[in-house]
Amino acid sequence: MSVLIVGSTALDSIKTPKAENPRLLGGSASHAAVAASFFAPVRLVGIVGDDFPRRYLRLYEKHGINLDGLQVVKGKTFHWAGEYEVNMNNRRTLKTELGVFETFSPELPLSCQDSPFVLLANIAPALQNHVLDQVRRPRFIVADTMDLWLNIALKDLLRLLKRVDMLVLNDSEARQLTKEDNVVNAARAIHGLGPKYVIVKKGEHGSILSSPGGPFLCPAFPLEKVVDPTGAGDSFVGGMIGFLAGSRARVEKNLRRAMVYGSVVASFCCEGFGLNATTKVTREAIEKRVETLKRITHF
Amino acid sequence: MSVLIVGSTALDSIKTPKAENPRLLGGSASHAAVAASFFAPVRLVGIVGDDFPRRYLRLYEKHGINLDGLQVVKGKTFHWAGEYEVNMNNRRTLKTELGVFETFSPELPLSCQDSPFVLLANIAPALQNHVLDQVRRPRFIVADTMDLWLNIALKDLLRLLKRVDMLVLNDSEARQLTKEDNVVNAARAIHGLGPKYVIVKKGEHGSILSSPGGPFLCPAFPLEKVVDPTGAGDSFVGGMIGFLAGSRARVEKNLRRAMVYGSVVASFCCEGFGLNATTKVTREAIEKRVETLKRITHF
Repeated sequence: MSVLIVGSTALDSIKTPKAENPRLLGGSASHAAVAASFFAPVRLVGIVGDDFPRRYLRLYEKHGINLDGLQVVKGKTFHWAGEYEVNMNNRRTLKTELGVFETFSPELPLSCQDSPFVLLANIAPALQNHVLDQVRRPRFIVADTMDLWLNIALKDLLRLLKRVDMLVLNDSEARQLTKEDNVVNAARAIHGLGPKYVIVKKGEHGSILSSPGGPFLCPAFPLEKVVDPTGAGDSFVGGMIGFLAGSRARVEKNLRRAMVYGSVVASFCCEGFGLNATTKVTREAIEKRVETLKRITHF
Repeated sequence: MSVLIVGSTALDSIKTPKAENPRLLGGSASHAAVAASFFAPVRLVGIVGDDFPRRYLRLYEKHGINLDGLQVVKGKTFHWAGEYEVNMNNRRTLKTELGVFETFSPELPLSCQDSPFVLLANIAPALQNHVLDQVRRPRFIVADTMDLWLNIALKDLLRLLKRVDMLVLNDSEARQLTKEDNVVNAARAIHGLGPKYVIVKKGEHGSILSSPGGPFLCPAFPLEKVVDPTGAGDSFVGGMIGFLAGSRARVEKNLRRAMVYGSVVASFCCEGFGLNATTKVTREAIEKRVETLKRITHF
């Protein structure tokens, strides 16, 4: 089955202690869509300006991503510039130029309205709500978010939480949202806000699922070299929902494996700038890392 | 088979945001010995003053811990006082009174010299070396350490590393020792210093084994409430070596399960002040948590 993915489609200029890469293909929807495309047909909803490089459109197409919902309008594509510190765990934003994103109103073409799986990748919760208003009878809805929306759009986010099956957020965001210091308790508190499933991401330490079927500790693939972690969280959630959509098994039964596949795609994402490494990955390489993860975590 | 454990035997005064507990039984050897005692006979080597409460001696004995190597001398028992911040991840030392520990020279009674499993729990590396000098044909030697010894006794520690089978240390110590930011690479660098097995502890995020048989990501048991994490690392390594000593399987084959058992004992340790929770644990409760850990990590 297909996955509808809405989020940001951006140009990322990324600086690390070792290199500088201007105007890479980025944004939450781009990372999530490419990650999901390894497992299921993807429909992308987003907006770019008329400066958006044609090669990036071809890259989406190479991954079989349906672009009926991608608006290409006059103006500049959303541009984000950031810099990572030596250990890659801290980053600071150097520049945020919203461009055409400032007036973005996601409108779903008819071909996208009946998507069974929906990923509301990181974007303003008002827009996430607006997309949900247009989807007919979705089977499984996942929302991602970030600290910015907790700070400036909490009311919209709380309204969204009553409408989604799963919320994905990182540990510090979970603490901020619930005022619970312990992640197990924070996840439980989030269930009370709506979502039946909660995933708390912990970066290199993996992620924790809290669900009616019990918790699951999903490992991160141990990497010897992290080139650029931008988009790793988006790749995780994209890979996960893609795997769910591409499988015949019921969501509840399939969720652990889906998280592991998402985790593996995220590990590839970290090994190159922007989408450079992710777009070169094969399904075979993904399967191999999943097997490795099983081998190094089971006892 | 039995385990020889040398380390600190102390009185710990522990303050958390919620409570204050003076003069609890503590020290690296105390935590490790009680943890190991669930799985194998333990011989404790340490020193206490004549102020050491008799009830703590009885507590060791209740766990079947052999005290032939425990020196009781005139003077004050080593006393440590520390305070935890709200999130329990940061602590600061309020007081360190070495007392009789200042002149401690561990002397192994004959009954302890042929111990097949040896745990050099956290203590000055010169003393760890001195204990090794007295052990005859040990089968498996594990050393724990802390940042203090990296700072003030690096030469002794490096000498020790050439003599032990396994080093256990936390992630920041691994980075400090090797100047490698990535823990996978740091563990590899430590192999070059001697130990065939390296475990990097990551607190609530579990631990990583690096070994000739490949890596293993050992999960931490997710706790809803951490009362006092003091001694959790000592409990982990004690439980692990106790499990190895208590089993007929070869170390390499048994190491993953041993780490998981250590991790589970450490989780109980965090649920009470000092050794309060650990000493109440049953083997049955340990097995139950091991089963739970398997259920929430396997995929």
